Amino acid sequence: MSYNNKLDIYKMNLPADLKKLSLPQCDELCKQIRRLLITTVSKNGGHLASSLGTVELTVAVHRVFDSPRDKIVWDVGHQAYTHKIVTGRAKKFSTLRKEDGISGFCRPDESVHDAFISGHSSNSISAALGMATAMKLNGDDHYAVAIVGDGASSGGLFYEGLNNAGKSNTNIIVILNYNEMSISKNVGSMAKYLSTLRTREGYHKTKSAVKSVLNKTPVIGSPVSKVIKGSKDTVKNALLHATLFEDLGFEYIGPIDGHNIGEIERGLQSAKALKRPVLVHVNTVKGKGYTPAEKNPGEYHGVGSFEIATGNPDVVASDSFSSVMGKELCDIARTNKRVCAITAAMKYGTGLQYFAKQFPERFFDVGIAEEHAVTFCGGLAQMRYIPVFAVYSSFLQRSYDELIHDLSICHYHAVLCVDRAGIVGNDGETHQGIFDVSFLSSVPNTKIYSPSDYEELRLCLRKAINEDDCIVAVRYPRGNEKSLIKNPEPNTSFTHIKKGGHILIVTYGRLCNNVMAALEILKTKDIICDVLRLVEIFPISEQIADIISSYDVAFFFEECYDYGSISEKYAAVCDNIAPFTIDYFVKHGDCDVLLDELGFSSERMAQQIEVFLSDEQT
Amino acid sequence: MSYNNKLDIYKMNLPADLKKLSLPQCDELCKQIRRLLITTVSKNGGHLASSLGTVELTVAVHRVFDSPRDKIVWDVGHQAYTHKIVTGRAKKFSTLRKEDGISGFCRPDESVHDAFISGHSSNSISAALGMATAMKLNGDDHYAVAIVGDGASSGGLFYEGLNNAGKSNTNIIVILNYNEMSISKNVGSMAKYLSTLRTREGYHKTKSAVKSVLNKTPVIGSPVSKVIKGSKDTVKNALLHATLFEDLGFEYIGPIDGHNIGEIERGLQSAKALKRPVLVHVNTVKGKGYTPAEKNPGEYHGVGSFEIATGNPDVVASDSFSSVMGKELCDIARTNKRVCAITAAMKYGTGLQYFAKQFPERFFDVGIAEEHAVTFCGGLAQMRYIPVFAVYSSFLQRSYDELIHDLSICHYHAVLCVDRAGIVGNDGETHQGIFDVSFLSSVPNTKIYSPSDYEELRLCLRKAINEDDCIVAVRYPRGNEKSLIKNPEPNTSFTHIKKGGHILIVTYGRLCNNVMAALEILKTKDIICDVLRLVEIFPISEQIADIISSYDVAFFFEECYDYGSISEKYAAVCDNIAPFTIDYFVKHGDCDVLLDELGFSSERMAQQIEVFLSDEQT
Repeated sequence: MSYNNKLDIYKMNLPADLKKLSLPQCDELCKQIRRLLITTVSKNGGHLASSLGTVELTVAVHRVFDSPRDKIVWDVGHQAYTHKIVTGRAKKFSTLRKEDGISGFCRPDESVHDAFISGHSSNSISAALGMATAMKLNGDDHYAVAIVGDGASSGGLFYEGLNNAGKSNTNIIVILNYNEMSISKNVGSMAKYLSTLRTREGYHKTKSAVKSVLNKTPVIGSPVSKVIKGSKDTVKNALLHATLFEDLGFEYIGPIDGHNIGEIERGLQSAKALKRPVLVHVNTVKGKGYTPAEKNPGEYHGVGSFEIATGNPDVVASDSFSSVMGKELCDIARTNKRVCAITAAMKYGTGLQYFAKQFPERFFDVGIAEEHAVTFCGGLAQMRYIPVFAVYSSFLQRSYDELIHDLSICHYHAVLCVDRAGIVGNDGETHQGIFDVSFLSSVPNTKIYSPSDYEELRLCLRKAINEDDCIVAVRYPRGNEKSLIKNPEPNTSFTHIKKGGHILIVTYGRLCNNVMAALEILKTKDIICDVLRLVEIFPISEQIADIISSYDVAFFFEECYDYGSISEKYAAVCDNIAPFTIDYFVKHGDCDVLLDELGFSSERMAQQIEVFLSDEQT
Repeated sequence: MSYNNKLDIYKMNLPADLKKLSLPQCDELCKQIRRLLITTVSKNGGHLASSLGTVELTVAVHRVFDSPRDKIVWDVGHQAYTHKIVTGRAKKFSTLRKEDGISGFCRPDESVHDAFISGHSSNSISAALGMATAMKLNGDDHYAVAIVGDGASSGGLFYEGLNNAGKSNTNIIVILNYNEMSISKNVGSMAKYLSTLRTREGYHKTKSAVKSVLNKTPVIGSPVSKVIKGSKDTVKNALLHATLFEDLGFEYIGPIDGHNIGEIERGLQSAKALKRPVLVHVNTVKGKGYTPAEKNPGEYHGVGSFEIATGNPDVVASDSFSSVMGKELCDIARTNKRVCAITAAMKYGTGLQYFAKQFPERFFDVGIAEEHAVTFCGGLAQMRYIPVFAVYSSFLQRSYDELIHDLSICHYHAVLCVDRAGIVGNDGETHQGIFDVSFLSSVPNTKIYSPSDYEELRLCLRKAINEDDCIVAVRYPRGNEKSLIKNPEPNTSFTHIKKGGHILIVTYGRLCNNVMAALEILKTKDIICDVLRLVEIFPISEQIADIISSYDVAFFFEECYDYGSISEKYAAVCDNIAPFTIDYFVKHGDCDVLLDELGFSSERMAQQIEVFLSDEQT
């Protein structure tokens, strides 16, 4: 088959046909892929810069390896859009991150070529090692390939994976995709170290030459040799094990130009030939091929839709819960000099960029290291500082043990700004923030606020920092305040809205808006409900239990996994609660559509209440 | 003050007086300390080998640093017994690990010299960095010192700490105590790397010499220099950054003989002078000074009481839930070739030594890396192997995110053998296994068994591996089966024992024994109770809820933190439950005494039921 002049990504049999292309044809294909990436992400939003950086790398990987027999594991999956395109999903790519469309991350149930799930950082080496080990047990000579960005290299799980893979005697190949960025500028000494390696062009060759010369050199003569005398092995060791990865048991190949398919293929073929753990170091440019993204890869890390020609986002960025938190925190920190702010590689995502600018000495970006973040908070708290760790709900899952061990046991005062709490939408099930209430409520000495609008977020944050004295989580959703219904009484405990009904609706956070709208719908059906809007949702309180118990029935709507939910806790002390929670992993899709499917739109709330009441009457 | 001839550890003002001693006096003191360690641990049990290895190191640390102004953070705390002795707790040391006595781990509320809590591995660098950062913000020029064993270096949190500390510009000093062992023989490529460093005596000096010579060498002449030409910096880099710790931004000092106080002090003084992140590498011998422990440090890692002269344990090791699990797993694995066993550095503790011996190719000790363990299980499960991860309840807390992200979302089949579930006794609040039910029940697609005796453990394990198809946790307590009351019907679901009462007692696991004994006490007071003994405790079942609801009242005894407990979940659907759970961190002490204090002895169970019923009648 020849693709001359008629190379068409939609008509090829991928990934098989990739192997039939010449290198110039590959470059032509990469152009097509870049156009498809830019067009699609400009419409659907998504992780553009990372994926633009890995186009050539992905094509080379699928030419050298034989997926799905070889297992290709993408870390995080931000970089895996091209992988999706070249593994039979080009035609469906326009549905990226849409309801029933293809996911923005790798999912084994979407394709046999997605060898493992991705979403949370730094898991790829451990997962690939599991697969490589299984293949070894099976007597299967294929490879497991983990592709990791340098951002993920700040996570402890990355290191645990390396530490175990390095001595594993399996066919595991780790491709370290170095682009000097994770999400914002990468931090930590590993990042600095990698940037040193990056500049060592030709380093690998030099090392081999030194090795061969040293082996031949008689240990006499030159001043260097004199020192070497008696410690030749030491010097040789220093030269031979000169990268950290070799110290950890890997063969090291690199650095390789990650936009030169021929060069990448030669590196990967060498790695295959070694038949043992190998780390291949590839340098790429994040945003490659799209000027606005190359210039500002941070801004194009995860984007909404935008105009292709200018790179301008469709919607002017407005305030969000994140930015309101970030600005209020600055206000508080101006007078309270003991406030420190911590992020795990999400300075912009969490709205901490304002704090970072105003109080650089009290701002700490620890990299993708949520465990360290919490233990570091413990150290600060022990010294009477007040650490404020702003983190996405689903990523805080990584810190569960540290919350118990390094904060709770010693009764430290620390504040968690739990961003992206509840349904987040297009990022899908790995990113939905539906477990934080469950796991935080099982950590002793913890209080949880769930403000429903900006003003309340500000009040809760101030109370958490200036008045409370335990672990305090302030949780709020992704995106903007819905100003549909103005909250009449922002506060930090609860609001009891009495309409004279015998039926109560209990809720908290963003769902308060939908409940208020549902009231109107129910009114048209002569169903009158009171509302109990919780702000301090945990610990549970006797006063609130008494209010709930005074009604015939209490409908409790909660954007939370059912086991461990607040409604479950109140149901344990009240016998009139009808809980509406979440009992499955929620896939990607539009946030409002997902909330509707979950029964949390005002229409569905009203409908469910109506059905419940009519069922009870019959 | 002179201590000649009258050095007495009980009369000294410690740690201040340490600084007044001559080196020979220090050695004399170390002998006294070793005697105290051996005598006390022989009576009370505890972590002997680690503590014997750090006697000289601890004395040197407290002579060079000024605690509590300098912050001394011990990782894990196994090694910190001498620290306790030389910081004013010599007289109380005989109460080690006893009720109201001193803890086996560091606790800030026990002494100002315990700068941070210890218990779970690898947290010391992060905590020390928090404190070093706070000191820097305070303009305080003191030091934060983290003392880490090489075992802890297999944990991801260790690496996250290093990665952040290395570029921190604070006065943080990490002392890496290398003894070739963590708990059993250390594993992983980092361990291998450290063992390479260990043998590089004089390495530090050699490196400096090479550096100075290379700087003076004209780049011509010798064969080596020819290679160096044009890449002199590369070679210099390789030599200058020759340890992984220097790659990560630390100054490196070592290796140092960890039993030579003078040598340690010189190293620590050099580290202090640098005023930036330094790693001091100290070689010690685990069990130093007590022959039985030196010969078998693994056996003396954590011991019960023993006879000093012979080193023989007082009680011949009998079967335990751990060993029964380990042996049954071998039986299962003999026919089911897809079973793999994984431990995080607890081969002996979890009873996996039998499996390791019989099926070495299917056995994986991943080091103290619970996160990696679970993600690695995900990789194996994706390849249709059945991973069985045996782990202590409190350490599984580290894997919460990986359970959700790398096992649950993709519906993998994996088995967790959750050892040390419930109260563990002398190890104290960091080790009590009281959270696993709460956090595991918030992970979708999870089933939990809590067998109450050996036979039931065997049944549950078989079902979990051969019949179930999700995440299955089989949880069981530390120690032995109580054969007080023979379980008449071992099974994997539940037993409903009917005595004709209108009162029900619900329980599971080890508490079943106490409930059966409580029945007898209650009978003498004419209180007749039925019993519902749960084995599959989660998910909750309608059938069980119906049984519970058919009684006037159901007392639910549960060795579990209250929020997230099984009783809470049933209370949410039944309105007649009186739950008895745990609502605080439980300190160290004798297990039976602690269970009594918690209200879980048969006497206290009976008493609480009696009081409840008489309160109701009035």
